[in-house]
Amino acid sequence: VELGRTELATRIEIEKLGDHFERVLDEAGFFFPAQKADGMKLNLRNLWSRMALTRADVQTFHGMLRQIMRREGGGG
Amino acid sequence: VELGRTELATRIEIEKLGDHFERVLDEAGFFFPAQKADGMKLNLRNLWSRMALTRADVQTFHGMLRQIMRREGGGG
Repeated sequence: VELGRTELATRIEIEKLGDHFERVLDEAGFFFPAQKADGMKLNLRNLWSRMALTRADVQTFHGMLRQIMRREGGGG
Repeated sequence: VELGRTELATRIEIEKLGDHFERVLDEAGFFFPAQKADGMKLNLRNLWSRMALTRADVQTFHGMLRQIMRREGGGG
């Protein structure tokens, strides 16, 4: 059992999760059209913050995205 | 503006989101080893329920996964 996994994630941990998804989604062309990209990215950051994720949840989301990108041959 | 997008998602909508991620993650080999798969799937279902997503949030998650799979050439 790892310590602290049921604690809420820190602001930094949430930011890094947002970075990970944003990078993959950017490469996938999710933020389209360009003039809406900034607003879409802000919405997504707000979504991650609002969810009150634990440290374990954050690791789960990183792991899901990493595995999807690995199996799809992407850069994940 | 669509009606109801800021309302909490229904149980059915959360279940369908869980189905979508579970299907893609299953194909990506995320649920490994096999004897842990059921527990991992249950954890993930609990995570989605716990997050108190709005209907708009659910659509965002569907859209993110769909776009990642489209660009990666998967079945998403």
